[in-house]
Order: sequence, then C-alpha cells, then structure tokens
Amino acid sequence: MRAAVMRQGRIVADDIADPVPGPGQVLVKTLACGICGSDLHALKHGEQMARVSREIDAWAFVMDLSRDVVMGHEFCAEILDFGPNTERKLKRGDRVCSMPMVPVGDRIAGVGYSNEFPGGYGERMLLGEPWLLRVPDSLPPEAAALTEPLAVAEHAVAKAGLGNGEAPVVIGCGPVGLAVIAALKRRRIEPIVASDFSPIRRAQAAKIGAHAVVDPRSESPIERFAKEAGAKQAVLFECVGVPGMLAQLMKQAPRGGRILVVGVCLEEDRIQPLVPISKELNLQFVLAYSAEEFAATLHALADGEFDASAFLTGRVGVDGVAAAFETLAKPDQHVKILVEPWRSGGLA
Amino acid sequence: MRAAVMRQGRIVADDIADPVPGPGQVLVKTLACGICGSDLHALKHGEQMARVSREIDAWAFVMDLSRDVVMGHEFCAEILDFGPNTERKLKRGDRVCSMPMVPVGDRIAGVGYSNEFPGGYGERMLLGEPWLLRVPDSLPPEAAALTEPLAVAEHAVAKAGLGNGEAPVVIGCGPVGLAVIAALKRRRIEPIVASDFSPIRRAQAAKIGAHAVVDPRSESPIERFAKEAGAKQAVLFECVGVPGMLAQLMKQAPRGGRILVVGVCLEEDRIQPLVPISKELNLQFVLAYSAEEFAATLHALADGEFDASAFLTGRVGVDGVAAAFETLAKPDQHVKILVEPWRSGGLA
Repeated sequence: MRAAVMRQGRIVADDIADPVPGPGQVLVKTLACGICGSDLHALKHGEQMARVSREIDAWAFVMDLSRDVVMGHEFCAEILDFGPNTERKLKRGDRVCSMPMVPVGDRIAGVGYSNEFPGGYGERMLLGEPWLLRVPDSLPPEAAALTEPLAVAEHAVAKAGLGNGEAPVVIGCGPVGLAVIAALKRRRIEPIVASDFSPIRRAQAAKIGAHAVVDPRSESPIERFAKEAGAKQAVLFECVGVPGMLAQLMKQAPRGGRILVVGVCLEEDRIQPLVPISKELNLQFVLAYSAEEFAATLHALADGEFDASAFLTGRVGVDGVAAAFETLAKPDQHVKILVEPWRSGGLA
Repeated sequence: MRAAVMRQGRIVADDIADPVPGPGQVLVKTLACGICGSDLHALKHGEQMARVSREIDAWAFVMDLSRDVVMGHEFCAEILDFGPNTERKLKRGDRVCSMPMVPVGDRIAGVGYSNEFPGGYGERMLLGEPWLLRVPDSLPPEAAALTEPLAVAEHAVAKAGLGNGEAPVVIGCGPVGLAVIAALKRRRIEPIVASDFSPIRRAQAAKIGAHAVVDPRSESPIERFAKEAGAKQAVLFECVGVPGMLAQLMKQAPRGGRILVVGVCLEEDRIQPLVPISKELNLQFVLAYSAEEFAATLHALADGEFDASAFLTGRVGVDGVAAAFETLAKPDQHVKILVEPWRSGGLA
C-alpha cells in the first residue's frame, strides 16, 4: 500500500507491505487522518521520545527509528476486513473512529508511533475491534478525524476541574490550544483569554470562542486576564510544548496558580525551581483521554457541539505529507491539515 | 553586637551595629536559632536566590550580597525593648517565637535574608510586634526554635491533603524530611515510607516515626512502598532540593502520582517533560506556612506532640557558625545545629 513513511528523519512516500489483521484486529481503510503537532516533533525528536518511553516503560511511543514508522493517530476509517477471533458486530463498509491502539496477544500496541502498526498516513491500518466506535452517518470523515485531538482537550479541561472562582488562560492557539478553547466553550466557561503570536491563529481562537485574544508581544495574557476576569484566579493551559515555555509561564503565573501542561515538549527543558516554590504553583501534566472521553467527544462532534470547519484548513494525499509537514512548521498558514491517503496530489 | 555574618560568600564572626527598633518593631535577644538547609544553599547560591526573587517580585529573598547579611530565621528570642507605636501587650523578658518578618512603614521585610534585618545568627534582632507569639513556659527555647521548620512541614502535609487511598513516601531525611515525617506522624498517617543515603538520618527517621526506611542504593522507595502500603497510591514528598532530584522522582513516581516539592532547589534544574506528561503527574510546590499554621505548630510543640530531642544534635556560639556550616554539608553527622549567640565556643 502507499504510505507517507518516517525514514531516517524524513517523510517519504513509498509502497510498503499491506497489513494483515491478526486475532482481535480489524483491517480498515484510512478515510482521513489529521497531522498532529506531536508528529512534527517526533520527526525532529523521535529518538528522545522513544528513549524516554523505554526508560519509563510507557508503551505509547516505543519505536525503533532505524526502521520505518508510518505516523498518524487522529483518524476516521472504513472497515475492510476482520481478523480471527473477532465478534464482527460492525460490518464491512462501516465508518469508525478509534483510540490509536491495537491488541497483540495479551498486550496493547500503539498505532502511529510504531514499527509494526502503521498509522493513518498510510492507505490501510490495523485497529483493535474492542475500541472501534461507529461514526454517526451525519458526521463526515474529515470532522470525525477531529475526535482524537478534541478528546485530548476534553480530557485536559476535565482534569483541570475549573472551580467557580477560576477561569482559563490558553497559551498557544495551535491545534491543541484551539481544541482546548473549543472544549472550554462547550462547557460555557468564561471568560476564555487566549494568547498567540500568529494573527491567523488569534482569529481562529476568536472564531472558536475565546472572549479575549492577545498578542503576547504587545500585551501580557495575565494582565489582560485580570481586566477580563476580575477577581477570578487564572488557570493557565500550556498548549505550546517547546523548551522554555514552562519556565516562562511559571514566572507569569499568579501566586498559588495552576498550570495545566497540555503541550507535549519532547526536548529536555530547564526550570528555575525557586519560581514555582515561591508562588506555590501547581503543575498538572496531562496526556490523552479515557475511552469514555473519546466516545463522548465523537458524539459531541456528531451533535454539532464543535465547529469542525474552524480547524480544517487543508488536505493532502500521501505524496503531499512531506510538504504539509514543512508548511505546518510555519504557524501562520494552517491549523489542521488532513491526510487523505486515497487522494492523489499535493496540498488542497 | 556579635553576629555570624555572610560576607563575600563566607561566614565570619564580627561585631556589627546594634539594631534599633523602629515603629511597630520589637528588639529581641536571640536565645536559639536553627541552621536551615536553605542557609547553606544561600551561602553557595545566594546570587541566584536574590536574582530570581527580584524577577518574580518576591520580597522574601531580596538581598544585596555585596553587603553583609546575617542569616537565621528559625528562632526563639526574648523581648528586650519596644519601638514606637507598639501596643506592648507582651512585656520585657517574655520569650517569643515569630515568623521571620518585620514591618517597615507599610511594607514587610524578611528577617534573615536581608541586608537591613539581621536574623538569629546575631545576638539581637528586630521583629514585628503583630507576629510575636509568647512561648509557653514549659517549652525550652531550643525546642521553640523548631517551630519554624516544623511549621514548614505542617504546611506541606496540609497542602498535600492526603486522601484515604494515599500514603506518603518521604525522599530525603534531612531536617525538612524529618519534620515532614513528624508532621505525618502527628496526623497518624500510615504507612510512612522514608528514604535517605545516610544511616544516621535513616535512624532518626525511624525514631521520629517512619514505618519503613530504605537506603535508595539498595532498595527502591517506591517498590518498598508497594510492599508496605498495598493498594494505596504513593504521594512523594521531595525533601532534598538539589538539581536532578525532581527529574529522578518523576521517573520513579507512579502513573497519576503526586509530588509535593518541599525541598528548595536554588539552582537551575533540568526536566524531561515527556516523563511527567506520560504519567500525568501532579507537582505541588510548597513554601513556608500561614500565620495560623505557625501558631498551631508552636502549641503542638508545647503540648509534646513533637519530639524536639530527635532533631537537635548540636549547639554553637557565633564563633562556631562557620564550622557548623561545614559540618552540616556532610549529611552523616548532624540533623539540626542551633546557634546560641550568647554562648561562647565551638560546636557542643
């Protein structure tokens, strides 16, 4: 099958072996798969990602980068075939979403950060039957493919558990920050203050539901928050995930403040512990979502509680993935580019 | 007056100007003052401490290290005289404890990390009348001087708010870790698992109330915790405060675990964010205590709820402070050394 392959630190379009479903596995055709910021990071810092995962025995990112990896974990797909020992309650042709994982005997493997299980940047994938969720007919695949990144935000906002005396400041309006804004908006939390250097991203943030959007070069998000939120305490959502951001946010955070770390920084980072100590800060690191949160997000999408059109800004076939990665590295042009491996041609 | 002065990165005994009480201030004689690990750190990393405090506008550690500083913030003292505008509800000769702060007009200054207000390594200090607490007659000054470090631990344990399904692992059994163990013990929290490289400190930890004490060279504190605490979730108390500890604890922490950062690391530190992200860790940084916690700790000491003798391992006069700092840098010999500025001679 055709796939955009991560090979020697580059993305190349190539023909790779067709996946064959094993016990409990289902073969699917990728209809649409979002390019995640973590995939961009993984292309640059994959070795670090794999090493740390091995060190802490986390299965999610354990891969051998001297071998091929097909990334892509934000997908909507169509059932093509079933492996042995499957219940087959869904049928061929059904459209599905799934958490990016697959059963292999009695263990679970990741889909998309794996040498064995290609993700949605390839024409076909193997998924785990127990985790397949049927996509409601009303929901197009390009919207259903947002389930994964929106579930990340739903989980982060749930984990934050904002109290009545608190309100959010979203730092960074890339796909993660915008998803967090959408999840906050859905819960009618206000005011939502958001911050990004990019005017396009600020406009998207306002469209999705931020009440106040600042350019941090000209205005401190924390000071703007004080104007917008009165006596409420700011809870910071770090949605950037690059070295130095955490140290900077800890300096800006109010005394006794909370920081939700949603952005995934794959590089080593430096902090000045006396800063969070002096302010008695609380840092909650978050990752992924529960199965329940993932399913609830898919249904919220189907119920029109998220505006998918505010996220989707481009589509590419397998041959266009490398160029899409380069485009996404410049934050001023796109929010979410979908890979549609059945499509031919470049960025549309 | 005689004082042990921090000057050009060294501790020297010298005569300095006698403090004169201003409005709202009270002149006291230092009866006993503990040497705090933060003082040892400040001697080595004071510039960093002062710079970070200025950057985040924290008054507690703002000092000019090109000028003299008399440290010492864990004290018991005796009232000598009152400044103008004081209520004088206490009287000369009364023994007092106080949070290390003093009013200067409408602002508050720190005592002990300050160019203006010498701490308890000098014969006399200025304190703020509103914060003076009378020491119950039954409590000797060397025990009352433990109020401050024990209040730090009381605050940390209160902030942790351990649930029924949680139990503590105390990393580091220096004065901070031992105080945390004492505060946990006082609340009848169990099991308390503690860890330190030093056999003397491990023995002190067991004496103070740890149920299991491990040498991390031969046994993982987290694995020991699993044996001792069954299904309970470990809450880690970081009581070391040196670079690298936080990164190490994040690797050891269980998934979804909490770390209370009680140790004060004054140097820049490095972390690998993917570790806490992968495990969804929560970090709560803590500092100091409330006025209520400070007062409650003094009364708990007077009520015999803490065993002061388990902490106190030495006494020095002003001339012995420099040598005491050197001794304390080797963790195998002492827990808490008290400075008694009225005493002459070296370590006793």
